[in-house]
Amino acid sequence: MRTPRPVDPCDFVIFGGTGDLAVRKLLPALYLRDRDGQLTEGTRIIGVAKAGLDEPGYRDKIQAELARFVPSGLLETDTIERFLARLRFVSIDLTEPSDYTAVAAVLASSSVDIRVFYLACAPALFGPICAALDAHGLVTESARVVLEKPIGRDLASAREINDAVGAVFAEHQIFRIDHYLGKESVQNLLVTRFANTLLEPLWNSSRIDHVQITAAESLGVGTRGDYYDRSGALRDMLQNHLLQVLCLVAMEPPTHVNRESVRDEKRKVLQALAPLSADDIKRDTVTGQYGPGLVDGEVVGSYRDDAENPESLTETFVAIKAEIRNWRWAGVPFYLRTGKRMSRRSSSIVVQFKPVPLPMFPGIEGASEPNRLIISLQPDEEIRLEMTAKEPGSGGRLRPVSLALNYTEAFQDRSPDAYERLLMDVVRGDPTLFMRRDEVEAAWAWAEPILHNWQDSGRVPRVYPAGTDGPVDAATLIERDGRRWHEGAA
Amino acid sequence: MRTPRPVDPCDFVIFGGTGDLAVRKLLPALYLRDRDGQLTEGTRIIGVAKAGLDEPGYRDKIQAELARFVPSGLLETDTIERFLARLRFVSIDLTEPSDYTAVAAVLASSSVDIRVFYLACAPALFGPICAALDAHGLVTESARVVLEKPIGRDLASAREINDAVGAVFAEHQIFRIDHYLGKESVQNLLVTRFANTLLEPLWNSSRIDHVQITAAESLGVGTRGDYYDRSGALRDMLQNHLLQVLCLVAMEPPTHVNRESVRDEKRKVLQALAPLSADDIKRDTVTGQYGPGLVDGEVVGSYRDDAENPESLTETFVAIKAEIRNWRWAGVPFYLRTGKRMSRRSSSIVVQFKPVPLPMFPGIEGASEPNRLIISLQPDEEIRLEMTAKEPGSGGRLRPVSLALNYTEAFQDRSPDAYERLLMDVVRGDPTLFMRRDEVEAAWAWAEPILHNWQDSGRVPRVYPAGTDGPVDAATLIERDGRRWHEGAA
Repeated sequence: MRTPRPVDPCDFVIFGGTGDLAVRKLLPALYLRDRDGQLTEGTRIIGVAKAGLDEPGYRDKIQAELARFVPSGLLETDTIERFLARLRFVSIDLTEPSDYTAVAAVLASSSVDIRVFYLACAPALFGPICAALDAHGLVTESARVVLEKPIGRDLASAREINDAVGAVFAEHQIFRIDHYLGKESVQNLLVTRFANTLLEPLWNSSRIDHVQITAAESLGVGTRGDYYDRSGALRDMLQNHLLQVLCLVAMEPPTHVNRESVRDEKRKVLQALAPLSADDIKRDTVTGQYGPGLVDGEVVGSYRDDAENPESLTETFVAIKAEIRNWRWAGVPFYLRTGKRMSRRSSSIVVQFKPVPLPMFPGIEGASEPNRLIISLQPDEEIRLEMTAKEPGSGGRLRPVSLALNYTEAFQDRSPDAYERLLMDVVRGDPTLFMRRDEVEAAWAWAEPILHNWQDSGRVPRVYPAGTDGPVDAATLIERDGRRWHEGAA
Repeated sequence: MRTPRPVDPCDFVIFGGTGDLAVRKLLPALYLRDRDGQLTEGTRIIGVAKAGLDEPGYRDKIQAELARFVPSGLLETDTIERFLARLRFVSIDLTEPSDYTAVAAVLASSSVDIRVFYLACAPALFGPICAALDAHGLVTESARVVLEKPIGRDLASAREINDAVGAVFAEHQIFRIDHYLGKESVQNLLVTRFANTLLEPLWNSSRIDHVQITAAESLGVGTRGDYYDRSGALRDMLQNHLLQVLCLVAMEPPTHVNRESVRDEKRKVLQALAPLSADDIKRDTVTGQYGPGLVDGEVVGSYRDDAENPESLTETFVAIKAEIRNWRWAGVPFYLRTGKRMSRRSSSIVVQFKPVPLPMFPGIEGASEPNRLIISLQPDEEIRLEMTAKEPGSGGRLRPVSLALNYTEAFQDRSPDAYERLLMDVVRGDPTLFMRRDEVEAAWAWAEPILHNWQDSGRVPRVYPAGTDGPVDAATLIERDGRRWHEGAA
C-alpha cells in the first residue's frame, strides 16, 4: 500500500470521549491514522465528557486503552507520544448549555479551520449538543457533525433528531455514520460494479435469480441488553446496515461517484422497496429470539437472561424477503437476515445468477450449480466468483470452482478498518459513504410498518438455540421458493 | 482426482511405431493411462514399422524410451512390466500392401472388438495404409483411424487425403487429432462458456472489444527443418491449432455437447471467417522468419541455418487480423499469431472486453484498464479474469486484480496431458474434440488464398532476431487499431 494522502489539520471533538465507542473504536482508529502519517501537524483530538479527569489523567487513560484495543505490533512509542500530545480533555455536563464555554475556549486556542464534532453519545443528546454548539457560535463553515446510529427508533423520532441537528448544521455538514459502509469489500462493490464492464450486463432481473444479505453475529447482546431490549434486530441492524448494503448492490449507475449522485441513487432504491402489507409481513418476515445454547463449545444463556427481562418479546433475529420495484429488479427476491448468537460471525452478500437456460452437460455430475458472486464482509473480506469448471482428466466430470480475490492475501499491507477510513472521510468533508437524511427517513418509512404490525399483531419471536442459524422459519422463508441460504465459509 | 473411467479393451496399432511421435508422445501417454488403471485387460499396443527389430527388441527399445520421456516419479516397475506385456511388434514395409498379412495375423490373434489404427507417419502414406488395411479386411465396424496433422498442404491435397481415407473409413471412424484441443484449459473453455451463465451475455460484439490468440514457441525448427521448410507457420500452426481454438472461443452454443453438434458449430465459425482480399492480405497479415539471436541466454542460429536452406522464404512467424462475419462477432477483430524462436513459450487466449461506457472514477489512477478473460494454455494452464478493484485505504486508488483459477493449484493431482486425454477419446469412439472433414476443408478454404497471395506477390518474411516477439510489423498490425498484444506472463 502506498502512503495515504494526509488530511488537513483539524480539531476532532468527541462528545462521549471516555465512552465505549470512543475508547474501543474512535481513538484507536485515529491513532492508526496518525501512525500512517495521515494526521497532519496542528491536528488535535478533544475528548469531552463528564468525568473526574484532568487532561494528564485523560492521556493516561487513553494510553492504557490504546494498549488494550490496538494490536500490539502496531503500538510504537514515538507515535503514541505524538498522538497523546494531540489529546485535550474537557470535562463538562453535556446536558448543561453553559458548560460549553469550556469547549469554546479549547477550540479558540487553535486556528485550524476544520472542526469535527463526533457525537459518540446517546441519541437523546444529539439535539441539545447541537443547540449548545450553536449557542456558543462554534458551528463554523468548516464544521461537521458525526451521528452514530440509531437515528431514531421510528420515522417520527428520526425526523425529530434530523430536525434538531438540521436546525444547526446544513445537510452537507451532517455525517450519519454506518461503519458497514467503510468496509473495504463494501466500498469495492462500487468499484467492482462501475469500474468494470463485466457485471453490468448481468446485473438485472433477467440474469440474477436472487440476492442474499446476511449479517450474523455469534455474540449475544452483552452489556447492551438495556439498549437492545428497546431496539431489536430490525432497528439495530436491518434498517440501517443491511438496507445500506442492499442499496449499494441494487443502485443504478450514478452520474458521478461523488456525494450526491451516489446518495441520490441509494435513496431511489429505498423508495422503490415494495411496502409490505399485513399479509406480506405474516408471510415474508421471520423473527427469532435466542434461547440458551452452545457457542464455540461454551454454554451461553438466553437473551431474556442477558437482557434481564424474563418476558422480553424483542427479536434478536430477523429475516425478511424484500423486493425492489423498479425496472432492473422487479421479481428478484432480496433475502435479508441478521441475528445474534448465530453459529458463527459471518456477513456476506450473495448474488445468485439464474441457472443456464438448458443444461448442456446433462447427467454429468456437478453441472447443476448456479453461478454466484459472493462478497464476504466478515470475518474475512473477500470477493469470489463461483463458477463451474471441468475436472481434469477424461472423466468429463464438472465441479464448482472459485475465482477469488482475498483482500488480505492480495494486498499484503494492513488495510485501514472501516472506522479509520470513515473518520478520514469526515475530516475531508466527503459524505459519499454516509447516510443522507432522506435515505434514513426512506429506510424508516419502509421498516416502520413492519415494526408496527409485529407489535399490533402480538408477534412473538420464535426461540432458537444460541449457536444455530436462527429459527427454522427462516429456512422455510427461502426454501419454499426453492432456494436456500448460502452457508459457505464466509 | 477420482479414478478415471476405464475404456474397453482394444488393439491399438501404431503405424510408425518406432518414430518420434510414437516414442515421445503416444507410448508415454498410453503408459500413463495404463498406470492410472484406464487400460483394461486384453488391451494390446501393436507397433508397426520397418525396423530391424523383433518383439523383445521392440520392448527393450520402448522400455528405454519410457525412461527418457516419462517423468521418473511416474515410472513404476509393476506398471512398466504390465505395459510392456501389452506390446507387440510387426516389422513391415508400410508401402508394401502384401506385407499387411503380418498385421492381419497379429490382429486375428485377439478377439477384442475395438481397433485403433494410429497413422504416426508421413501423410503420403495415409492413403496407401488405409487401402492396405481395407484389402486385408481389417477395417471392422469398431475400427477407427487417427490422422496426425498436417492434413494436406492446401485444400486440394487435404481433399485428396480425406478422399483416400474416406474410401475405407466412414467419417465417424476418422479421428483427425489436434493436441491443442486436448488441453484442459481448451476443453474447459466449453465448460466455462456453457455450464455457466456469466459469460454468455458478455460474449458478443456489444461487449467484447477484440480477441487475441497466441501460440509462441521459444524452440526453433530443430530436426524438422526439412518438413518445416515446405510448410511454414501458417500451415503448421495457424491453419489448424489456432483456428481450432478460435472456433471454440467463437462458436454458438451447440444443441448438445456431443460429437456432431459441437463440430457443426465449429464449422459454421470457419465458414463465417471473412475471406481476405489481396488488399486485406497486404494490410492484415504479417510474416516473419527468425534470424540469429539469443534465447534463454544462449546464442542460436537463424532459421536458414537450421533449415539448411540459405534462400528459404518460409515464414516461421505469422500474425493475422481476422474477422468472423456473423451476427455475434461482426466487427470484433480476432488477432492471431504464432511463431518459433519467440522470447518465451507462451500460448494464450485473451478476450478483451470493451471499456466502461463512461469513466466513473475520472482522474483516479488505475481506473482505465479494461477487463480481460485470459486463458493460458502454455506453459501453465490457467483461467484468469482481470478486473479493477479498489486499493485498500482511503486513497481511492484503483488497480487491476486477477480472479484466477490455476489448474495445477486447484486440482492437486497430476492432470493427464492432451495426448493421454485424446487417445482415450479415440478408444471410446468420441470424436467431439477431433476435426471433421468439413472443418479441415473450411479452414483450408480460408487459409489457402493467403498462401497463394504470399507466393504470387513474392512476399519475403521480415527477419526478426531469435528470442524476440516477432517482427515489428506484428506490433504495428494491432497498434494501428489502438490496441496492443498482451505480453503478460502466461
